[in-house]
Amino acid sequence: MPKPPLPAELAEFLTHANPSVIATLQPDGSPHSAATWYLWEDDGRVLVNMDASRKRLAYIHRDPRVSLTVLGTEDWYHHVTLRGRVAAIEDDVELRAIDRLARHYTGAPYARRNRARVSAWIDVEAWHAWGGGRPWTG
Amino acid sequence: MPKPPLPAELAEFLTHANPSVIATLQPDGSPHSAATWYLWEDDGRVLVNMDASRKRLAYIHRDPRVSLTVLGTEDWYHHVTLRGRVAAIEDDVELRAIDRLARHYTGAPYARRNRARVSAWIDVEAWHAWGGGRPWTG
Repeated sequence: MPKPPLPAELAEFLTHANPSVIATLQPDGSPHSAATWYLWEDDGRVLVNMDASRKRLAYIHRDPRVSLTVLGTEDWYHHVTLRGRVAAIEDDVELRAIDRLARHYTGAPYARRNRARVSAWIDVEAWHAWGGGRPWTG
Repeated sequence: MPKPPLPAELAEFLTHANPSVIATLQPDGSPHSAATWYLWEDDGRVLVNMDASRKRLAYIHRDPRVSLTVLGTEDWYHHVTLRGRVAAIEDDVELRAIDRLARHYTGAPYARRNRARVSAWIDVEAWHAWGGGRPWTG
């Protein structure tokens, strides 16, 4: 898989409010996957955020390797996969990060204010893109 | 995570032509994810199919544990994740399986006829569903 930086067209694609699925590793080494909001940050890292009670949080503490597949909203078979590892995990004080994500996806702050949340930033180590039946390199 | 069988409403959801992402394990144990077509079979197994040259095929031969997250077409945050292992891998003779998938997703047989393809059937061992901000149990 190619290494970052991503071609400009793919980086632009990632700035949209696309559906995505994150794959993490369970303690027995098996894969776990779940739909997630993400934000493509200006520094090329990827922000995800989860409820502090999520098992996924323990999984990434134990093994930070993740893979995120981002689907196009018009044609979901147009997709970009980012592989890497979680480089930072932070308590989401005052829910600032989930509010950024919620505004990006819904246009409004996050509705549920009474649950602790945690942010994770993914360092992208490799990427792969696919579009319209062939590799998509931007 | 609950075990099969799935509640009827979730099984019905899985019969639609939904976007999905499959997570597999690379030889170093790191997660790999990619968008995929799938078919929910009558026996509760899940069919996926890939080009015979796909690295993913070698990964599932080496370690058959997979996780498949299926997103809703109207609201992708309505999603079902199926975890399990690949129980059967078969050459897709005459492209019958990919044609079933292509008809399901596009209404037409698979266009690219000159490449060998392989089918894999996943035995579902556990599932998880999420809808509208809360667990979705059908």
